[in-house]
Amino acid sequence: MSRFRLTIEYDGRPFVGWQRQLNGSSIQAAIEAAVFAISGERTTVYAAGRTDAGVHAAAMVAHVDIAKPIAASRLIGGLNAYLRPAPISIIGCEDAADDFHARFDCTARYYRYIIVNRHAPLTYERGLAWQVRAPLDAEAMHEAAQLLVGRHDFTTFRSAHCQSSSPVKTLTSLDAQRQGDHIYLRSAARSFLHHQVRSMVGCLKLVGEGRWTASQLAAALEARDRNALGFNAPPDGLTFMAATYKVSGNLTTS
Amino acid sequence: MSRFRLTIEYDGRPFVGWQRQLNGSSIQAAIEAAVFAISGERTTVYAAGRTDAGVHAAAMVAHVDIAKPIAASRLIGGLNAYLRPAPISIIGCEDAADDFHARFDCTARYYRYIIVNRHAPLTYERGLAWQVRAPLDAEAMHEAAQLLVGRHDFTTFRSAHCQSSSPVKTLTSLDAQRQGDHIYLRSAARSFLHHQVRSMVGCLKLVGEGRWTASQLAAALEARDRNALGFNAPPDGLTFMAATYKVSGNLTTS
Repeated sequence: MSRFRLTIEYDGRPFVGWQRQLNGSSIQAAIEAAVFAISGERTTVYAAGRTDAGVHAAAMVAHVDIAKPIAASRLIGGLNAYLRPAPISIIGCEDAADDFHARFDCTARYYRYIIVNRHAPLTYERGLAWQVRAPLDAEAMHEAAQLLVGRHDFTTFRSAHCQSSSPVKTLTSLDAQRQGDHIYLRSAARSFLHHQVRSMVGCLKLVGEGRWTASQLAAALEARDRNALGFNAPPDGLTFMAATYKVSGNLTTS
Repeated sequence: MSRFRLTIEYDGRPFVGWQRQLNGSSIQAAIEAAVFAISGERTTVYAAGRTDAGVHAAAMVAHVDIAKPIAASRLIGGLNAYLRPAPISIIGCEDAADDFHARFDCTARYYRYIIVNRHAPLTYERGLAWQVRAPLDAEAMHEAAQLLVGRHDFTTFRSAHCQSSSPVKTLTSLDAQRQGDHIYLRSAARSFLHHQVRSMVGCLKLVGEGRWTASQLAAALEARDRNALGFNAPPDGLTFMAATYKVSGNLTTS
């Protein structure tokens, strides 16, 4: 039995999300089907982040065990061949330590959210960004975002379906930066609650519009109450950018 | 009769190109149909660049005449409403001088070409970039590209369908820059021959692979012969980025 660490890029648009579900195609099921086609083995692929329907990944990290002897360098090509034409691409595949766990060993997760702040509809970014028509003050968004950074009870920003044992998380960073009509929101944390990034972005959009002050955002956080939430931003603009691990997670260094 | 200057973003994937054609939908025909829906007038929309099938635009400039009185600020919303759901978006609309011509008055055109240099298939960038598997030396590409900059007879890099009166053009700049597995090629000129950017990128890819030396590229240019062409890069990675005009082209300053 060998454990492999996969790095995966995907376009979330046609999927019900990362996780296997009865009601549609998931990224997890597609990769597990490709592993089965190669090895004849029914496996589970574990990912650092279980992204929602319509959320994308630039470099999701996952792991999978395969009993059939196969080199990582051959596995990657085989997986990509069987995944075609689904918009899922294995961009990295390495031998991993037997106890490497893509989800539990992850020390930091990085998300990016893209807002296109303009009146005109999207074209090639449709489904890849959130179009917001009202003019947004990105500096005010960035400033308010700093109130969320640090260790807090994020109950306000947590979905009802969240499976995390605790609503207390440490948000490492949350930055908003305008480039032309694009606003990039980048966030890092060891882990996030379900819907946390989209909830934070939804509230920061209200701040950007001037409908919420920074103190109203702080009060919403303080409330520890989902009813205090402004609203969730749509999945379209969200991309899982990277997951990091202690170096000892790699077989090559263990 | 009023003349309007339009700035247009589009996703070239579903279109036969900018120009009206009998065999499929074009961006030009879609905008002309939207103008007709608003004004009841059959018009021609003239663009700075007549992009090919599958080529995109971030800010194509065009002009159109409309007799029915309508404010530019209302025209833009009407056009976008009628264009829906086609991936064409009017991102700017201004009153223009009666003699402003988007094509003939254009003083500089800017194109960007994106190569994704990796083995794994594309996902959300499918149709928006050219996937090249062989490792490319972007610095060698950039260096060789400088041989094409300046005033030259670009017959080698010209399509058989090119309607330009002369193959002599002045290439203002052509830069290749790597960022991770992406190589961005940016080019500017007063005007380009048909297929010129894609032909230049196709040859620079051979240089990047080490299959052509810089002197072979220079010899191909010198040959002034289409048979000396390496090959055309596919349309997917190409985007028309901007067109510039003398300030006097705007009604507000005339």
